[in-house]
Amino acid sequence: MSEMPASFVWLNGALVPTGLASIDPNDRGLTLGDGLFETIRCANGIPRFAKLHLVRLRRGAAKLDIALPFDDTEILAAFAQTLTANRLEGAAVLRLTFTRGAGLRGLTPPADAKPTLLITASPLAASPPEIAAVICRITRRNEFSPLAAIKSLNALDNILARNEAVKQGCEEAILLNTQGYVAEASAANIFVLTDGRWLTPRVADGALPGIFRSLVLVHQAASEARISEADLFSAQSICLGNALGVRAVTSLDGRDIEMQQEKIAALRTILHAEEV
Amino acid sequence: MSEMPASFVWLNGALVPTGLASIDPNDRGLTLGDGLFETIRCANGIPRFAKLHLVRLRRGAAKLDIALPFDDTEILAAFAQTLTANRLEGAAVLRLTFTRGAGLRGLTPPADAKPTLLITASPLAASPPEIAAVICRITRRNEFSPLAAIKSLNALDNILARNEAVKQGCEEAILLNTQGYVAEASAANIFVLTDGRWLTPRVADGALPGIFRSLVLVHQAASEARISEADLFSAQSICLGNALGVRAVTSLDGRDIEMQQEKIAALRTILHAEEV
Repeated sequence: MSEMPASFVWLNGALVPTGLASIDPNDRGLTLGDGLFETIRCANGIPRFAKLHLVRLRRGAAKLDIALPFDDTEILAAFAQTLTANRLEGAAVLRLTFTRGAGLRGLTPPADAKPTLLITASPLAASPPEIAAVICRITRRNEFSPLAAIKSLNALDNILARNEAVKQGCEEAILLNTQGYVAEASAANIFVLTDGRWLTPRVADGALPGIFRSLVLVHQAASEARISEADLFSAQSICLGNALGVRAVTSLDGRDIEMQQEKIAALRTILHAEEV
Repeated sequence: MSEMPASFVWLNGALVPTGLASIDPNDRGLTLGDGLFETIRCANGIPRFAKLHLVRLRRGAAKLDIALPFDDTEILAAFAQTLTANRLEGAAVLRLTFTRGAGLRGLTPPADAKPTLLITASPLAASPPEIAAVICRITRRNEFSPLAAIKSLNALDNILARNEAVKQGCEEAILLNTQGYVAEASAANIFVLTDGRWLTPRVADGALPGIFRSLVLVHQAASEARISEADLFSAQSICLGNALGVRAVTSLDGRDIEMQQEKIAALRTILHAEEV
């Protein structure tokens, strides 16, 4: 592991030394996965596209009927405090975890739940620009669930997919939806170069509306399309991108994938463009 | 709420006063839903069908590649200690939460993770024998995921379904799978009386292999079948059952459902039969 644990976390309004930070065993984030998260890249001590992350967080919270007890200004200040307390002045990652809070046993959310907002930070290790990937066979992305469109704490399907890749000596796994169309990678959106143009799966087909993905669409650098497994193997390039970085796929299920370096570089540029 | 918080929890090998029990903010159960749970009914201070729950827990742990650091004897002793410490000598519920443990950011499980095993207990309030239900329209059960067959911490689809029921003044929601067949209720298996015989959805169609469901099948009191939405409305009775109880559905989406009391009573009897 190249990332060291940080020495402070921000929990419900205050910085707390990591070893003293404690989550209630009855927190529904733990007991039922009842919450959301965001992963925010920081460059030179500045969170990148933080507002876009917060917009997505609030959209998710609305879908789950959880009121966020902090406004954007407070959360942005918490990001800055957490980075400063951990002396993270270079490339870093903020992880925000938001849950419905503690509740007694059972699915029905308590009326008086007090949500939990946790922010942790760690240095961002440089990720490899090129990776090998597999198509995930063990599970499928459920495009029929509203969870496909929000960044929920229910990440087990993604973990299973990732483990499948790792077991085959690869870095990433590409998930198909229940109808067999391409949805996303375990922790990134997928971009498929076809006839010289980047295509990316629709949210309706199970793509998480990723922050990098939304930037690419705003820049009109890709179009949404339904993508089949066969389309992947005839692609001119495949990239996996998220808020942390863009990686080109060199092989899929052991078969070489073409790489058009200029097109890949153009996609990477978008992640480092001015914030919108 | 009729359930009072208990005063002790069992955490990783020891009883801890509830207010002092603390979960690491980096526990992957919290950050990624990376774990499992079991809900065990206790009668007269005795956990019912505890061995069946532990078999299912171990099957789930194997699917997630998490080694359970306690043997059955230790976990059964922990159940007894937790009940005694909380003076729960009557009807009670044990909730076991098992996670991969703490890890740094990212999906890939750390090689050195130390799993978390948490046991909480609460009195079991009598649940109503009859309830009103709806068919969940907001989400679908993903029968293509191995998570459908294990009791994972990824319960958000079930929470969304439950909320949909509550908003309509009902107690439970019945989830369809991605192909539109009946899978289960938000926190129970479903049993549909058809031509005088109880039918229950197959695990392959998204039914959680529930403990009560497995008892019913062992007693040959129901058969597995593919069940459509139309089948529900022509049913002679519908019951929702889990380890905690069996409830008859009086109405579905506002339409009255027939109730054959003898057949319903026969199903209830199984929950209170001798442990297998």
